[in-house]
Amino acid sequence: MANNNQKIPYKIYLSENEIPASWYNVRADMKNKPAPLLNPGTLQPMTAEELSAVFCEDLVAQELDNEHAYIPIPQEIRDFYKMYRPSPLVRAYCLEEKLQTPAHIYYKFEGNNTSGSHKLNSAVPQAYYAKKQGLKGVTTETGAGQWGTALSMACSYFGLDCKVYMVKVSYEQKPFRREVMRTYGASVVPSPSDTTNVGRKILEQFPGTTGSLGCAISEAVEVAVSNPGYRYVLGSVLNQVLLHQSVIGVETKTAMDKYGIKPDIIIGCAGGGSNLGGLISPFMGQKLRGEADYQFIAVEPASCPSLTRGKFAYDFCDTGLVCPMAKRYTLGSGFIPAPTHAGGLRYHGMSSILSQLYHDGYMEARAVEQTKVFEAAEQFARVEGILPAPESSHAIRVAIDEAMKCKETGEEKTILFGLTGTGYFDMVAYEKFHDGLMTDYIPTDEDLQKGFDGIPKIDL
Amino acid sequence: MANNNQKIPYKIYLSENEIPASWYNVRADMKNKPAPLLNPGTLQPMTAEELSAVFCEDLVAQELDNEHAYIPIPQEIRDFYKMYRPSPLVRAYCLEEKLQTPAHIYYKFEGNNTSGSHKLNSAVPQAYYAKKQGLKGVTTETGAGQWGTALSMACSYFGLDCKVYMVKVSYEQKPFRREVMRTYGASVVPSPSDTTNVGRKILEQFPGTTGSLGCAISEAVEVAVSNPGYRYVLGSVLNQVLLHQSVIGVETKTAMDKYGIKPDIIIGCAGGGSNLGGLISPFMGQKLRGEADYQFIAVEPASCPSLTRGKFAYDFCDTGLVCPMAKRYTLGSGFIPAPTHAGGLRYHGMSSILSQLYHDGYMEARAVEQTKVFEAAEQFARVEGILPAPESSHAIRVAIDEAMKCKETGEEKTILFGLTGTGYFDMVAYEKFHDGLMTDYIPTDEDLQKGFDGIPKIDL
Repeated sequence: MANNNQKIPYKIYLSENEIPASWYNVRADMKNKPAPLLNPGTLQPMTAEELSAVFCEDLVAQELDNEHAYIPIPQEIRDFYKMYRPSPLVRAYCLEEKLQTPAHIYYKFEGNNTSGSHKLNSAVPQAYYAKKQGLKGVTTETGAGQWGTALSMACSYFGLDCKVYMVKVSYEQKPFRREVMRTYGASVVPSPSDTTNVGRKILEQFPGTTGSLGCAISEAVEVAVSNPGYRYVLGSVLNQVLLHQSVIGVETKTAMDKYGIKPDIIIGCAGGGSNLGGLISPFMGQKLRGEADYQFIAVEPASCPSLTRGKFAYDFCDTGLVCPMAKRYTLGSGFIPAPTHAGGLRYHGMSSILSQLYHDGYMEARAVEQTKVFEAAEQFARVEGILPAPESSHAIRVAIDEAMKCKETGEEKTILFGLTGTGYFDMVAYEKFHDGLMTDYIPTDEDLQKGFDGIPKIDL
Repeated sequence: MANNNQKIPYKIYLSENEIPASWYNVRADMKNKPAPLLNPGTLQPMTAEELSAVFCEDLVAQELDNEHAYIPIPQEIRDFYKMYRPSPLVRAYCLEEKLQTPAHIYYKFEGNNTSGSHKLNSAVPQAYYAKKQGLKGVTTETGAGQWGTALSMACSYFGLDCKVYMVKVSYEQKPFRREVMRTYGASVVPSPSDTTNVGRKILEQFPGTTGSLGCAISEAVEVAVSNPGYRYVLGSVLNQVLLHQSVIGVETKTAMDKYGIKPDIIIGCAGGGSNLGGLISPFMGQKLRGEADYQFIAVEPASCPSLTRGKFAYDFCDTGLVCPMAKRYTLGSGFIPAPTHAGGLRYHGMSSILSQLYHDGYMEARAVEQTKVFEAAEQFARVEGILPAPESSHAIRVAIDEAMKCKETGEEKTILFGLTGTGYFDMVAYEKFHDGLMTDYIPTDEDLQKGFDGIPKIDL
């Protein structure tokens, strides 16, 4: 199958019938499974019944499934996927030349759809299963706005109502995101808001707060559980989301296998972990089964360093403490990250799956500062012709760093990274960067301690 | 070669080695050639020498070449094309289903690059030839900002300075476009400005004007001819631009031939004519040679109806009257279109090539109003997952209209249209549309007469 003599094109496109027929569930190959979600009242693992008050039934089943390695993708979802998938795997020839590196750089580009990111991969199944269950609508939170847009698109397609709580700092930085969501018929509320009990409480406690994903989640969950016919959906963090996002990794691996390419390093930005988890999953599966080895690098903002400086502990998922508790690397649900321009990475905790893999030594993590990230973004844009989102640019930063190491050592490593999305709605950030007004935020140990103090003292 | 039994995928991607090796020059197959550009002083056809004061030498040769049907694309340009081409030809299955039409709808999507449009196809060769000639930089105008962005990208890649005069109304409606251009190192000035003689004169004559492409062209040309080492480049209208844009049509035809698809109707939006001219060129060539027949429809805004309500006459290309004169359908160089949201279509004249073809009866034209255009845009976005630019949505409007006619008659026509770009920077317009604040502008006969009065009284 592998054919090393074949000239590798700039962009590898699979054909439509190569869209994966199944998602790959990396949990099936993990010896140490991710710890279960806990009911914060009883401290017992959440049952399917309990979870079904918040999530759709099929998604609950996927959330709890640690056994099945392959979960078939329903035809209706594959049909929607055909609208924008398979996404291209790009050989960054121009970047390699610019850097004068012997490294081979590849990126899987998920930005060629209106949501502008990989988020649509999970929005489609989540809307599909909600519709299948006969629900009226769904609620959610959004950071940078990409998840909200993706969900709006999916809901519009399947005919569901969609209520989006958007982190206030992003709502203000990205006024036009709201209009894209409205184009798809969604209603968008800046969070924290006075439309929920938890929102009002947070506003009272932290007047003038710019919000966080943690706050927005609390509001969206409250609205879902208090309105009949509604459920809550989430764009990252959860096991089900990483499962859906495995479509990225499975396509990537299929494309690479076709050309006999084996990556040495696989890099992804990590906020809640959906993109990174999706990209690495089939490769991680090989590593877990002892079939192949790869170096995995999670890249997070220095302003919100859950893997590199957080605690591995049971914690709340949201600021309002209305959600189940999850065991993962966390900065504490009370930690409100500085208002950096990577809204999609401003979340205090990491996916339980990735946290476990990191804890068990299967993956590395690096924290990078936003000015360095924008330098990489601009360098990339100028040669590769894609304007990257700030979130995605975290991965670009480390990919360039690794390629420059290869230049020093002369190693011809193959580097793969996830280019999750485009930055068309991030021009306020680019403007600040151009004008030299961008600053870096690195929390002090004291800042972090405040967040850690809110982590409940339980150990199971 | 044709294979009608093959299931047509949602997206047809050609491989990289199917990127055209030559541009197709439709002029070679035209019996009535487009009229030459005239020197406004002597009223004689502009010589290559005269044109070379304004344009790069290789581009002048292409501008004047009415003979060669195929002009090879230099390898350096093909390498850049590989960064974002071949672009997908999409079968609009979801739109067809939504409309319940028996028509088959296809669109060639040119928006998957950072310029967000087809404009990059001509920016790349124009920057390449400028560099090849050893120039320092280029100047240009931009309407919606897509051409300016495309040129910035190309100049950054080839290492050229880039000065962009941006029509003021677009500059204000699309503040973030400027930042994208800055990301690529360009300088951007709202037009009319006080940085040129012609800009100052226009500001004096029409205080408070929101500008037009015609004004911005005058300013950019003035700067080019008064700065050594600079030339002017243009994103539409010119013969050379239509030549470069033929890459769209040649790819489309190659993809359709592969699957044995023959379009009955080919539709494109038309401002200066670059996208439409590029898309239709190889099909028009067949029609001109009597090998096949197609229905071609140019779609223009009702607010700027150069084909449907203009005069076929020699006229100035710019408001400041500094450019050569061209014979084409025109509203008069003094006509300043209403500030609609399709900035890329706000130009008083049409390409000479398309004007001649229209005049000779090879092509039809329709004028549509912007509220109807945004209705089509939203309908399209909701089912096809792409947020279209207002300009492109003119073509969507007519494609939907034609598909609905098929629904009435039961005809199974094949409709092809050009989806030139994305609307990520047009959210101010979408917002107005959502809020019911969008109005239509249709010039009265009196309004048009004012423009016509400025057309010089010559007939050659």
